[in-house]
Amino acid sequence: MKPIEDCTVGIAGMGIMGGAVAMALGKLVPARILACDPDVRAAGAALADGVIHEAFTDAGEMLERCDLVYLCVNPSALPGFIGARMGDFKTGALITDIAGVKGNIAKVVEEKLRDDLDYIPGHPMAGSEKGGYAQARNCDFRGKNYILTPLKRNRAENLSYLAGLIRRMGFGRITVTTPEDHDRKIAFTSQLCHVIAASLVDCEADTEITRFGGGSFEDLTRIAMLNAPMWTELFLENRGELLARIDQFGESLAAIRALIAGDSAAALEARLGAVRERRAAMAEQ
Amino acid sequence: MKPIEDCTVGIAGMGIMGGAVAMALGKLVPARILACDPDVRAAGAALADGVIHEAFTDAGEMLERCDLVYLCVNPSALPGFIGARMGDFKTGALITDIAGVKGNIAKVVEEKLRDDLDYIPGHPMAGSEKGGYAQARNCDFRGKNYILTPLKRNRAENLSYLAGLIRRMGFGRITVTTPEDHDRKIAFTSQLCHVIAASLVDCEADTEITRFGGGSFEDLTRIAMLNAPMWTELFLENRGELLARIDQFGESLAAIRALIAGDSAAALEARLGAVRERRAAMAEQ
Repeated sequence: MKPIEDCTVGIAGMGIMGGAVAMALGKLVPARILACDPDVRAAGAALADGVIHEAFTDAGEMLERCDLVYLCVNPSALPGFIGARMGDFKTGALITDIAGVKGNIAKVVEEKLRDDLDYIPGHPMAGSEKGGYAQARNCDFRGKNYILTPLKRNRAENLSYLAGLIRRMGFGRITVTTPEDHDRKIAFTSQLCHVIAASLVDCEADTEITRFGGGSFEDLTRIAMLNAPMWTELFLENRGELLARIDQFGESLAAIRALIAGDSAAALEARLGAVRERRAAMAEQ
Repeated sequence: MKPIEDCTVGIAGMGIMGGAVAMALGKLVPARILACDPDVRAAGAALADGVIHEAFTDAGEMLERCDLVYLCVNPSALPGFIGARMGDFKTGALITDIAGVKGNIAKVVEEKLRDDLDYIPGHPMAGSEKGGYAQARNCDFRGKNYILTPLKRNRAENLSYLAGLIRRMGFGRITVTTPEDHDRKIAFTSQLCHVIAASLVDCEADTEITRFGGGSFEDLTRIAMLNAPMWTELFLENRGELLARIDQFGESLAAIRALIAGDSAAALEARLGAVRERRAAMAEQ
């Protein structure tokens, strides 16, 4: 790959993440950020803002010119997009994505990718409960986690190249793992948390209950302001792992409930103390 | 009651809340903030900081001089404190507390309060996962909710007086309700949230999982850094209401789990959409 400063970069999908990637890469690539979106308003707004330099509604026209491609389309649309657009990529292009579930992407890419291309699946752990290009400026990459789930066929120099770029975009820790490990862990840190937040709002109809809020309920349910279509996709695409995580959480909830029901002060205090220590250890990671 | 500027104020218990109350009242009462704590280091530190003007280890010596008393002792110690100290309060004193469970306090006060005293139970919805006087400066009252659960015997003018003081301390909305309603709602907004956060940390032993965190897990489990003895007390003191809330949450969790297990995309998206709308309505309260 040539230096990023000499690359033409293409971003497919101008939602919050596509927009935020364009803004971050725009600081490194002064004049060649291209973007496509079937909705002309999204890429049009980015063009008007100077965040991108050319806008397309047809992905093919854009892809044939791009050395580096960031696929920022909806996770459920991604496998179809990869299959349908395989003929459009520029020879030797490096491709990556941002999808929150990785197992199925790996399969599609292994099966369909042209030999001259390289495709490194990734997951920037950034975003917001509010979606859309207009929110891109509020999507802060600084210090955030980034997960890469390389394929066996990826070239080592491309992996280093992409990791270097990710760091220059402001991200903090980069973790390299398998798609399966990613999907198992993300089911816990992200999807389970969204299911819990949604359940907490779901179970109480009295909207005035927040008069009794002191911050905890607000913190736990901020992510319940979720993009329902996207999270439905993510939950269902990672269904097996997520169901296992819900049950794992349910077991701890039942155990703590039993200590409360049994008025077991000493055992409850010991368990809460262990939770506090573990949470502190997690914060140090 | 005389104007607060002319009152001698006593604070029993120099933890995070006692300290924060002293700081807030210190702006209104320049020279007569007294505090007692059996641990001489807590009140001593407040004295050294100029946050209080006299420190006591014996509550009786302090109480006999105070026109207004804030009881900031641990919730489980409060009923015993009220009973044991009833002879010590100054004639005509106005007393309030900050305990997070209100039903049992009301009973004790109705039973034991001297006729010349007035006692208005309250719950400032502020705090921090970190306890102790040293954290008092990080306990921000501005705009926070405050719940008052008056007794039938309270004098209307004292209720107005305390509400005025609470506003001057920086709090936002003041809600007046019954102890039973308080305990039922707080079981949801506060205690259930702490049980959920604790369960979420409890169920995953891998402390490196936070490498896969994007903010959701961190937001949901910040309050899992809990003061284990205090939360054990609060959970057990409000056991009945809390168990009912855990079960109510469990039903919603099971319902959303069933939609995911059944691959019911349309129904899941509709339910998540309804959650989003309800959460938005809650935020407007």
